[in-house]
Amino acid sequence: MDRYLVISADGHAGLPAADYREYVLPKYRDAFDLALPIQIEMTETMAKQFLVSDINKEWRKGHEEGLTGAWDHAARNQVVDDDGVSAEVLFPDGVTEMNSPPFGGGFSMPVDNVVPELQWEGCRAHNRWLREFVEMEPDRRIGLACVPAVWDVDDAVKEIHWARDHGLRGIILPTSFGSFAPYHHPRYDPIWATCQDLDMPIHFHSGQAPITDYFGPVPPTEDSIALPGAMGIYVSEVCWWNVRPLTFLIWGGVFERFPALKVAITEGTTVWVPEYLKLLDHRYVDTHYAQKLGDYHSHMKSKPSEYFARNVKLGASCMPRREAEQRFDTGIEQIMWGTDYPHPEGSWPFTRKQMIDTFHDLPENEVEAMLGGNAASFYGLDVERLNKIAERVGPKRSEFRS
Amino acid sequence: MDRYLVISADGHAGLPAADYREYVLPKYRDAFDLALPIQIEMTETMAKQFLVSDINKEWRKGHEEGLTGAWDHAARNQVVDDDGVSAEVLFPDGVTEMNSPPFGGGFSMPVDNVVPELQWEGCRAHNRWLREFVEMEPDRRIGLACVPAVWDVDDAVKEIHWARDHGLRGIILPTSFGSFAPYHHPRYDPIWATCQDLDMPIHFHSGQAPITDYFGPVPPTEDSIALPGAMGIYVSEVCWWNVRPLTFLIWGGVFERFPALKVAITEGTTVWVPEYLKLLDHRYVDTHYAQKLGDYHSHMKSKPSEYFARNVKLGASCMPRREAEQRFDTGIEQIMWGTDYPHPEGSWPFTRKQMIDTFHDLPENEVEAMLGGNAASFYGLDVERLNKIAERVGPKRSEFRS
Repeated sequence: MDRYLVISADGHAGLPAADYREYVLPKYRDAFDLALPIQIEMTETMAKQFLVSDINKEWRKGHEEGLTGAWDHAARNQVVDDDGVSAEVLFPDGVTEMNSPPFGGGFSMPVDNVVPELQWEGCRAHNRWLREFVEMEPDRRIGLACVPAVWDVDDAVKEIHWARDHGLRGIILPTSFGSFAPYHHPRYDPIWATCQDLDMPIHFHSGQAPITDYFGPVPPTEDSIALPGAMGIYVSEVCWWNVRPLTFLIWGGVFERFPALKVAITEGTTVWVPEYLKLLDHRYVDTHYAQKLGDYHSHMKSKPSEYFARNVKLGASCMPRREAEQRFDTGIEQIMWGTDYPHPEGSWPFTRKQMIDTFHDLPENEVEAMLGGNAASFYGLDVERLNKIAERVGPKRSEFRS
Repeated sequence: MDRYLVISADGHAGLPAADYREYVLPKYRDAFDLALPIQIEMTETMAKQFLVSDINKEWRKGHEEGLTGAWDHAARNQVVDDDGVSAEVLFPDGVTEMNSPPFGGGFSMPVDNVVPELQWEGCRAHNRWLREFVEMEPDRRIGLACVPAVWDVDDAVKEIHWARDHGLRGIILPTSFGSFAPYHHPRYDPIWATCQDLDMPIHFHSGQAPITDYFGPVPPTEDSIALPGAMGIYVSEVCWWNVRPLTFLIWGGVFERFPALKVAITEGTTVWVPEYLKLLDHRYVDTHYAQKLGDYHSHMKSKPSEYFARNVKLGASCMPRREAEQRFDTGIEQIMWGTDYPHPEGSWPFTRKQMIDTFHDLPENEVEAMLGGNAASFYGLDVERLNKIAERVGPKRSEFRS
């Protein structure tokens, strides 16, 4: 084939907030009606507080039709065709702040100031809608179910079964567990076991962070002051918060007990990987340091980097050239490129150009792996069927040669 | 001189817990007497929970006399002479868990579950003792005052003046601000101004981290379970928590407003520096990403890496060879080597050997800078006087040639 099979490991899809109503069970619709205007108002307040509402409006100008691909079947297919993308992984929260599922049930699944039962219903409303959206294009849409795992573990296990039975192919978990049980706690073992048995990869997607540390109270109180540089701190830390659950899983021995469990860390860049693995391996083997701190690794037969190589992949959204050049330090089998459509920081509508900027003149088998092959194997996709789509929409290999 | 002037940027000194009594103001002594047995019991419980008490006891066997250098004048001088160290920076908490100042006033200055007034008194008790300890050997002992800055800012400013007036040469701040004002908050400006005006470098020293995330409740409750790998998570994260305040200071524009402010990040390794600066600079200049997020950097005239080069140094405790090889990526003017005496993870009593393992066969002017020159300039030390000590105790340059 003279084209690449491209699978985006980072796409977002979700209904406009009000349209989730019909996906919420009738008994929660009164609560939905009460919560919707509050959700919309908070969204607008935050956008203003972050000084971004004007900027986002500006960015969206002229893109209105393409952005409806966040929820519209035909528009979505047009966008991914134009992008050269044959299939994509679907996270919640389509057009960032405008398409969140209700009750804190979406993208970052906060654990503070939410009602667990309602957050579950918000997640399920999204999962129910996403199931339909995936059914319309099952080869090209790899849907992820939202699972707020810090609450009841049996509920989480049931939802993962439901998701698998209804055509979804992985789950997204909250990156922050707040003051609830952290991810090395054995209470989560039934979730890891279920994901392993059903081959449902687990995803952590960057976005969640302790924003009150940066901005003060959100929404602001009367006494709040604008803290200079708050957003700079957020963008400097947010990827670390997203990698953090992996640290807990590795040291918790989760990959020792569940050797076939799959985890993806998405939109967190890939630059942290080499030093991160050196650090964890160093802590694993350095007995001089360890002598002060007792035995914390005899329950792990392998080094952290070995679990990483076997169990973990990276959703490398809009990866710049520099990260492609570091691909062997990162792990060339780990990298799964993504567009982050339809987020403003994503590559759309300039995806084809950005792909070429990043991957031009690299060996074709390596580009193949990073643009699609690694994702195909991670999600167990039918490459033959996808290649037929790629033959029509995929970027030409020749375009990557200068 | 055929020897190196060695200045350890990381030493610890403190009285046995009970001996702080006479340094506490009389009106707090009843509280001291009540708190002391609780402090000792908690210390022992935590040492057992971390499974380290036996290991530490074993490590200390045969070192009992040397370890009294944590508070004993003559023993201290013997230790640093033997180590080849001419001067050293003194943080609190001598023999780790055995020498903490009272009322949470020492090393990591927790902000949760402490009474601010008492924590202040614990800090001041240590500062009063340290002042005497420094006066006995003022050229060789660079004492740091404990300043729990998250409480009243005027109190902090007064303590910094007191410290400067009484021969101390810098301060240590809590690395964690908990739910209190973070370090980019303008409320701290009087502290930064005072430290700049009095030339008192600010120190963050690794140790503090959200340990209940790793271990569950500390001390454990009846329902607590042993979480596997908890200590592995701690040692993998603890340096990040110690660097975190720097991220807040940089983006807060603190180094823009206080261009002569000095900050040291101690015992946090140096390996994080290159990627950290690349990330912050990238966030500073990347207007594509920024367009979604508003203006968060026009209050900073320089790039984060430029503030780092000008305002920040690293206490590089027991730095391994690999970090010496990366010295130019890190910043050769930033590195201040240290022993971490008398902590079990420190180089003592094998300091001379470890120094040579790390620095052998590197250009002598570079070794000079990292072993002592950078610290001498950071603290404004009298190098002529210190060289006289180095002539007697310093390691011979010839020992570093293989």
